[in-house]
Amino acid sequence: MAEKRYLLTPGPTPVPPEVLAAIARPVVHHRSPDFRPIYERCLARLRDVFRTEQDVLLFGSSGTGGMESAVANLCSPGDRVVAVVAGSFGNRWAAIAEAYGLEVERVDYDWGEIPSAAELAARLRELGGASAVLLTHSETSTGVVADVQALAAAAGDAGALSVVDAVSSLGAVPLETATWGIDAAVSGSQKALMTPPGLAMAAVSERAWSRRGTGPRFYFDWERTRKAQAKLDAPFTPPVPLVAGLDVALGLLLDAGLDAAFDRHRRLGRACREGAKAMGLELFSPDDDSSAVVTAIHGPDGIDATDIVSALRDRFGITIANGQEHLKGRIFRIGHIGWFDVFDIATALAAVELVLAEAGADIERGVAVTRALEVYHEHARV
Amino acid sequence: MAEKRYLLTPGPTPVPPEVLAAIARPVVHHRSPDFRPIYERCLARLRDVFRTEQDVLLFGSSGTGGMESAVANLCSPGDRVVAVVAGSFGNRWAAIAEAYGLEVERVDYDWGEIPSAAELAARLRELGGASAVLLTHSETSTGVVADVQALAAAAGDAGALSVVDAVSSLGAVPLETATWGIDAAVSGSQKALMTPPGLAMAAVSERAWSRRGTGPRFYFDWERTRKAQAKLDAPFTPPVPLVAGLDVALGLLLDAGLDAAFDRHRRLGRACREGAKAMGLELFSPDDDSSAVVTAIHGPDGIDATDIVSALRDRFGITIANGQEHLKGRIFRIGHIGWFDVFDIATALAAVELVLAEAGADIERGVAVTRALEVYHEHARV
Repeated sequence: MAEKRYLLTPGPTPVPPEVLAAIARPVVHHRSPDFRPIYERCLARLRDVFRTEQDVLLFGSSGTGGMESAVANLCSPGDRVVAVVAGSFGNRWAAIAEAYGLEVERVDYDWGEIPSAAELAARLRELGGASAVLLTHSETSTGVVADVQALAAAAGDAGALSVVDAVSSLGAVPLETATWGIDAAVSGSQKALMTPPGLAMAAVSERAWSRRGTGPRFYFDWERTRKAQAKLDAPFTPPVPLVAGLDVALGLLLDAGLDAAFDRHRRLGRACREGAKAMGLELFSPDDDSSAVVTAIHGPDGIDATDIVSALRDRFGITIANGQEHLKGRIFRIGHIGWFDVFDIATALAAVELVLAEAGADIERGVAVTRALEVYHEHARV
Repeated sequence: MAEKRYLLTPGPTPVPPEVLAAIARPVVHHRSPDFRPIYERCLARLRDVFRTEQDVLLFGSSGTGGMESAVANLCSPGDRVVAVVAGSFGNRWAAIAEAYGLEVERVDYDWGEIPSAAELAARLRELGGASAVLLTHSETSTGVVADVQALAAAAGDAGALSVVDAVSSLGAVPLETATWGIDAAVSGSQKALMTPPGLAMAAVSERAWSRRGTGPRFYFDWERTRKAQAKLDAPFTPPVPLVAGLDVALGLLLDAGLDAAFDRHRRLGRACREGAKAMGLELFSPDDDSSAVVTAIHGPDGIDATDIVSALRDRFGITIANGQEHLKGRIFRIGHIGWFDVFDIATALAAVELVLAEAGADIERGVAVTRALEVYHEHARV
């Protein structure tokens, strides 16, 4: 029998069958009447999900391409930018900015720490401002969800553009792009938007449009994409099946309502944390409801997290994530983004429990799954 | 009954059901043992299709992203490059190079003309060389397939890197990347590689690796991608389903053999040209076997090609392509790239014949399809 597979990483994430079915349809031409209504609806739904009236630009690339588009379009060589770094994806912002010849000032945190808006404001005062502040909403490497509303306000107060990596947060936790005054929010298809990887998006404020830089760009040029999208065209041949899939996925998300998705992610995070703690494990990600995207957990003493990840994969076909960079082997991460319910959490916890018990770890048997289900339903907003 | 659809444009092109089925499979993690063998095989097959032993770099983007990657990685601001321009995609090379602050010297041809290696060589002598020459193998806007072997040799003789847009040519007409000394050949998934749009590739020579420039790049940085691919990793989350689909499509292409594909495209082009001429239409693209990718045809006097394209689409669900830019309305284009057989040509010709007859054009009825089928089989290499 074909072994079952469980994709429980923080991205890519499982894709609902309706979305896979849309992706598998024969390819239509992107300038034909078979595609334009799909494209139009998908772009409108993206505005709803980003909570903005402004154009959301759609690119055929990974989320990193969307991040790069923000740096390439908003900055000019030599500009000073501030990167708030508390994990792997904060580092990515800094690396992109350096590749574009910017003067990068880092506000560094230990991985797992929660960035502070007051500290960002102080640093911006000290520097005498910056052209942009590069922020990470959900730091997938640690499970921390930052208060980007407060961080963006600190950037705005200092006259800097706020640029937010919302790759793993969009659709999982609240993001009010317009109301919070975020100048550029970028995301990707392969997390809470329940679509395979291959599409990036950027929601751009009026202020950001008026402050574009001179950095070189072509494929990721915002103006070229905005002009083309205004005619329901695409500047370059888009990944037609992925756009069709994203349209279906966004429909599923919006039909149930963003609030329902946020509530579900919050409860999934709580179930995962409470289950892990019930087993006797120590959390790495914050033990509060902000941590609704990915739960990072310390491996028990003497057990390498790499072995836990490998055992789940090799024995059960379950993919969870290792720690990244210096946290590799020290933590493991269970994603609960997008098309997840509590039984996915139960699967992950049950498998981790079995593997740890067999490895001789000092854990409590038989309580994690029950506790996870209990907590998940206890906190349902009925 | 659901109306049938016929995608007969020069890209995106029809995707075989085996490829669609691979794309529709549940998403697996790109760093898991479920994906790595697919990725490895796909990269190996790409080397076979490009006819090179060098790494072929794979990006999640349209073909234009692959073109931009060549400019961003090989050139430095202020470098002189020569763009050979004989259509829309030659113009794209020039536009990308200008966006990167290069000094762009154009060797211009009327659209539909075939670029000359001798003229390129003369221009390079006159200029005292260039850092790179930007070439278009198959100019999709006109149907012209250039002699990139001779053009690349002229570039090489002048000490310039030869950079070839092989987006619509790769897998349709011969391209010997290594033997012809091409320094960078870029392509895309959505033409003769029979996969939906969303993947670009770049085959890079040793000489090109040693002559990289200082232009800013991150997502399209070749070195980052090469290093990651060497570990069977990807620098950023790749479009997993499209890679799986491309792997299957390349398998279909290589199992039948590249020569069989080239022979089929040559015969499809001949069938399309002979059918169109039998009807009494005038060809825009060259009337010779080099024109194996797309056939461009003048609309008959007094009939706007836009109306032909619209009628095929609205009445029969058939998508063919209009002329681009100044040729819009003057020519129409029938693609025969990738997963095509002669009955696709017959469908296009039969529909064009009906629409033109009803519009009162002075055409010969009842001969085009027969002639196309006859010519296709006459010239089969048995």
